[in-house]
Amino acid sequence: MTRLKWGMIGGGEGSQIGPAHRLGALADGRFEFAAGALDHRPEVGRAYGQRLGLAADRAYGHWQEMLEGERSRDDRIDLVTVATPNATHFEITKSFLEAGFNVLCEKPMTMTVEEGEEILQVAKTSGKICAVNYCYSAYPMVRQARAMVRSGELGKVRLVVTSFSHGHHGDATDADNPRVRWRYDPEMAGISGQFADCGIHALHMASFICGDEVARLSADFASTIASRALEDDAMVNFRLEGGTVGRLWTSSVAIGRQHGFDIQVFGETGGLRWASEQPNQLVYTPVGGRTQIIEKGEAGLHEDAQRLSRVAIAHPEGFPLAVANIYCDLADAIRGEARDGLPQAEAGLRSMAAVYSAVESAKNSGAWTDARPPMFR
Amino acid sequence: MTRLKWGMIGGGEGSQIGPAHRLGALADGRFEFAAGALDHRPEVGRAYGQRLGLAADRAYGHWQEMLEGERSRDDRIDLVTVATPNATHFEITKSFLEAGFNVLCEKPMTMTVEEGEEILQVAKTSGKICAVNYCYSAYPMVRQARAMVRSGELGKVRLVVTSFSHGHHGDATDADNPRVRWRYDPEMAGISGQFADCGIHALHMASFICGDEVARLSADFASTIASRALEDDAMVNFRLEGGTVGRLWTSSVAIGRQHGFDIQVFGETGGLRWASEQPNQLVYTPVGGRTQIIEKGEAGLHEDAQRLSRVAIAHPEGFPLAVANIYCDLADAIRGEARDGLPQAEAGLRSMAAVYSAVESAKNSGAWTDARPPMFR
Amino acid sequence: MTRLKWGMIGGGEGSQIGPAHRLGALADGRFEFAAGALDHRPEVGRAYGQRLGLAADRAYGHWQEMLEGERSRDDRIDLVTVATPNATHFEITKSFLEAGFNVLCEKPMTMTVEEGEEILQVAKTSGKICAVNYCYSAYPMVRQARAMVRSGELGKVRLVVTSFSHGHHGDATDADNPRVRWRYDPEMAGISGQFADCGIHALHMASFICGDEVARLSADFASTIASRALEDDAMVNFRLEGGTVGRLWTSSVAIGRQHGFDIQVFGETGGLRWASEQPNQLVYTPVGGRTQIIEKGEAGLHEDAQRLSRVAIAHPEGFPLAVANIYCDLADAIRGEARDGLPQAEAGLRSMAAVYSAVESAKNSGAWTDARPPMFR
Amino acid sequence: MTRLKWGMIGGGEGSQIGPAHRLGALADGRFEFAAGALDHRPEVGRAYGQRLGLAADRAYGHWQEMLEGERSRDDRIDLVTVATPNATHFEITKSFLEAGFNVLCEKPMTMTVEEGEEILQVAKTSGKICAVNYCYSAYPMVRQARAMVRSGELGKVRLVVTSFSHGHHGDATDADNPRVRWRYDPEMAGISGQFADCGIHALHMASFICGDEVARLSADFASTIASRALEDDAMVNFRLEGGTVGRLWTSSVAIGRQHGFDIQVFGETGGLRWASEQPNQLVYTPVGGRTQIIEKGEAGLHEDAQRLSRVAIAHPEGFPLAVANIYCDLADAIRGEARDGLPQAEAGLRSMAAVYSAVESAKNSGAWTDARPPMFR
Repeated sequence: MTRLKWGMIGGGEGSQIGPAHRLGALADGRFEFAAGALDHRPEVGRAYGQRLGLAADRAYGHWQEMLEGERSRDDRIDLVTVATPNATHFEITKSFLEAGFNVLCEKPMTMTVEEGEEILQVAKTSGKICAVNYCYSAYPMVRQARAMVRSGELGKVRLVVTSFSHGHHGDATDADNPRVRWRYDPEMAGISGQFADCGIHALHMASFICGDEVARLSADFASTIASRALEDDAMVNFRLEGGTVGRLWTSSVAIGRQHGFDIQVFGETGGLRWASEQPNQLVYTPVGGRTQIIEKGEAGLHEDAQRLSRVAIAHPEGFPLAVANIYCDLADAIRGEARDGLPQAEAGLRSMAAVYSAVESAKNSGAWTDARPPMFR
Repeated sequence: MTRLKWGMIGGGEGSQIGPAHRLGALADGRFEFAAGALDHRPEVGRAYGQRLGLAADRAYGHWQEMLEGERSRDDRIDLVTVATPNATHFEITKSFLEAGFNVLCEKPMTMTVEEGEEILQVAKTSGKICAVNYCYSAYPMVRQARAMVRSGELGKVRLVVTSFSHGHHGDATDADNPRVRWRYDPEMAGISGQFADCGIHALHMASFICGDEVARLSADFASTIASRALEDDAMVNFRLEGGTVGRLWTSSVAIGRQHGFDIQVFGETGGLRWASEQPNQLVYTPVGGRTQIIEKGEAGLHEDAQRLSRVAIAHPEGFPLAVANIYCDLADAIRGEARDGLPQAEAGLRSMAAVYSAVESAKNSGAWTDARPPMFR
Repeated sequence: MTRLKWGMIGGGEGSQIGPAHRLGALADGRFEFAAGALDHRPEVGRAYGQRLGLAADRAYGHWQEMLEGERSRDDRIDLVTVATPNATHFEITKSFLEAGFNVLCEKPMTMTVEEGEEILQVAKTSGKICAVNYCYSAYPMVRQARAMVRSGELGKVRLVVTSFSHGHHGDATDADNPRVRWRYDPEMAGISGQFADCGIHALHMASFICGDEVARLSADFASTIASRALEDDAMVNFRLEGGTVGRLWTSSVAIGRQHGFDIQVFGETGGLRWASEQPNQLVYTPVGGRTQIIEKGEAGLHEDAQRLSRVAIAHPEGFPLAVANIYCDLADAIRGEARDGLPQAEAGLRSMAAVYSAVESAKNSGAWTDARPPMFR
Repeated sequence: MTRLKWGMIGGGEGSQIGPAHRLGALADGRFEFAAGALDHRPEVGRAYGQRLGLAADRAYGHWQEMLEGERSRDDRIDLVTVATPNATHFEITKSFLEAGFNVLCEKPMTMTVEEGEEILQVAKTSGKICAVNYCYSAYPMVRQARAMVRSGELGKVRLVVTSFSHGHHGDATDADNPRVRWRYDPEMAGISGQFADCGIHALHMASFICGDEVARLSADFASTIASRALEDDAMVNFRLEGGTVGRLWTSSVAIGRQHGFDIQVFGETGGLRWASEQPNQLVYTPVGGRTQIIEKGEAGLHEDAQRLSRVAIAHPEGFPLAVANIYCDLADAIRGEARDGLPQAEAGLRSMAAVYSAVESAKNSGAWTDARPPMFR
């Protein structure tokens, strides 16, 4: 099987996201790195691309140059990853979809709900894949959880409880650190801080595992460091369309939590628990029975959990390989294999609708608001 | 030092609560068991009391008989524990306080806010101690957490997040089990199910550790098993009077959680985490530093944490000895030593006010309500 | 049921062991504290005993005075606990047994194998109970482990691996601390340091859970702090009589381990793991299946595990109540109920034989030695 | 920086080891896959190599063909990985070294000590790198541990305790499974079973972290499943040259342990603990202080720990990226940068000497034997 051709926009030298995507795309040999516009400074980007092994004519200076260059080639890239600043995701993603490219967009897919609806429409019209990098959903044991719910092993899901809370923005004396400050500056971050940054991963996962969409929500936002214009802590209660009760806490001032993303799912006949800091185990308790540890790699897992694991039981696989799993699903999907676990534009749109809904609710003392995009109401 | 005399009302043969209190009162040799009215069936109670070693004339058939009997004795009991069905706590507690006895009342102290205010008034007038059995607050490492906050080791507390969630009522096919059913029957349980049962322990602890009172709250209640008239899952957002943000989740359908009572406290300069299933450790992270494990029994703990521990570091002490710690504090307080960690009538009253506030909020789609008792507004 | 009468020798004011035994004996109301010779200074002991509530004529000044006093009473004590310095255990225990008292002796029961054989003989002749305080074996989940092995749930046990390692003697600059120093001084500690102090708890438990006796062993001792005459770290390989392979590591210089006593048992059809710092869970894995968490208090436990637990599932019970469980078994045994989980003189003797065997092996470069007492060879 | 050229021998279709090495070599973009002899069946290997993207003339049918093909090219591979059956490692590794190639050999590097000494000599003569895939040593937190010891943060190391025990060969009814059986068949596995398979990883790590070599050892081997000619459980006591005491337990019948490779290091001024199932944390306790959690990615780690980590704190990195770290160090070393953490031929030789020493000791009832290769005695 020949490798697919992959390109990236953004992810320049010194960024964290660039190496993460290159590792994700290349680790399993499904893609080769064929084109890139890696930096907003054209010469810097071209030089870096060539140092990374790109041919000179495919190490572009700007994403529009890359769009023009690639669309006219016979050996055009099969997939482009958009890993630029958030505010540019919409325009680039839309342009590449319209030109007939498959896209993997970093989250958030857009800055507004309207843009999200437009992307969804464009993707549909183009017939191309527009994936969004909700990479946590690609951990094997998250896929196992989803498959267990889908196959009815928990019965109807009554309750889903999730949190994505860390403490890395908890030092008020570090508030001028530019890597922290922009998150709470509406000019750069948009209408939401912590919820838009981390909370939507948790909300996506709740919906992903339960196989059901968020219908409405009530939010309580706080800026526990008073100088912040946007929230650094949020609680969101929600209901899925099928009636499941949801609870989501997200914080960036939870000092001592490093990467506190976890989820608990409680159904009629059992409960599940998964935590991102120990991603290779899934804790399962059948009603009336003992708690069991389900291990990545054990015999008898659901297909998605097996397929997206590389090494034997109890050999941990971590975050970069969850990103790689997104690329595995993308490679399969590009070749025409159904990969319904792959998060796509609709998920990106629904996240944005939830952000706007939560902000509105928080401003209205927690009044319940419709969390669905207008086009799905 | 001679032992104090102790009596109990309720806790008859076969109950769980009777042995727990007897162990708590007797384990450290501070009290001797001197009187009791242990059963609502007079003869059964008298016989059981004598089998437990009570003198025949102090093994009473009814709490009123005990009240009369003890008040007239020179060697009257120094403390009475009220461990009867919830609806009777108010009357018995009030009567014993008025007769000049110190009381330890099981939670909930009363069924209404008005009763709570009355108890508080009676206790004040009588000059006697009216303690309420929020026994989790007497774990040494909870006291350590409280002392750390009080001494400023966390800076101002920004955020407190707590949960008390289990799954022992998660089997809908077991809903007719009388030990489960009454919790969701307003005739027996009052206006709230899970929040009044477990949630108030968590709310008390948030307030206890932070050294601040709950000012207002917003609640989302759910009966995830539809046949239940009262909530089996609740999320309560709150604010302490000093502005601290609070989040509390409580559930009885969280299958796989056994005794999921835990609390996280996040301040300007550090965070803490404690969990009731591993009560002998307190996890502490200074801002910008590494997470540390504080062990019960280590050198240099705060006084309350040292005093309420019996065996060396890493020899676990569990729930029954947390109850015993309440009795230790009571013995000291009766002898005139200040024990401000001992939960008293005001705590019982504030819990009841919070229950009514939460029920009102939940009925009003989560509208924020004043959580304080009227007398403290 | 009237309470049994209990006396104690040793455990004077300021000791840790005194309160631990009083709590253990009194917590469940099975015993009343009736007599004591609590201090080697007669007046101090008498005064302390009376302060603890003993009658003046039963607050003795010396153990021999107590022996004389009690043997002549009609209401003589039903049980005496020997909690004096190690070198005195033999003489006191023997004397009380010969006088027809039941005894609970702290470990080590004796200082030599010959003394141990003598105690065993005396106990047999007297018809009285001579228990030894291997209290860890009385944790409910240890009893569950033993019952699972006995009932064949693990198949034949192939392998048992245990450790009892802490780091509290790891500071060489603290080596003159008298609480540490005596452990490594042959004058006071005898022929072995860490193995005799902690290792024999682990060896006893291996034998206890497996239901089989230690046959032979090979030891590697080290004094990692060179000034120590006795070992502070030891590895002991052993074989049970039925062929089970055993591995035991014990250390007092394992800095960071607080109370690292744990055991793993591996049989043909499953494995178990228990750790003393989290004593309320037992981890069980059936061969080819998933790891399960067995919780103290869950439905369906073996009888011993149920009987020796007081509060509901996931309410932790700790070390002092494990000691209390020894007293529960003793109370039952004194009343004539078979309690074969109660560690008795034979266990004390076998421990002493293992200590001598290990010391001999360590001196002979790990040569395998017979670990059985001569009388059982 | 242009990518280095990499080739592989072995790792054919369906093997686990092939994808693991390809991922390890390619994940970080340091190497390109340029040549391979992937299968012992020439046509199968050639076809598979081409499917993986190799040019037709570099998809070889046999390792000798590859040796001939590559040695004559100007663009010859910079590194060859030897991932063939154990008995062939020696010949292939030696041949490629002699032809001037850098080699990464899977463990065990050879089947005898003599072969190991020969490889070491050949590597020295050739001036080429001969690395051995002790990949666990390349986890960032293992490197942190090593750097902490080296920088004196633990003082002199007194004691190192390690285990590598799993239960995946614990089912006697599965003993005919060919994936299990060969491990205990001297014809295929050589003179040792579990110790040679897993134990040497643990022994290497003890030596690696302590920065000291194994001097002598005493072993206790057992075949707990009686039909096995080689040991499935082993305990090895050892001493490092500087006097550090070592304890190593390895088992394949420890049912319930999935991948139980862990290590504890105890020095004069602190202790460390690391476990392969949670590889991103290192637990550190300074003497007299509290246990701390050191996180991969935290600020202030030693250089090796920082360099070999890709994503932010608390984003787990797992086993495949530990393998990739070996390739990172190799790429650097090939380019001339000193990477003294890279395990090389001497480590492979010392492992083999330890295996022979342990087998001899076990046969002689645990007699202490010299564990050093003859050339280092």
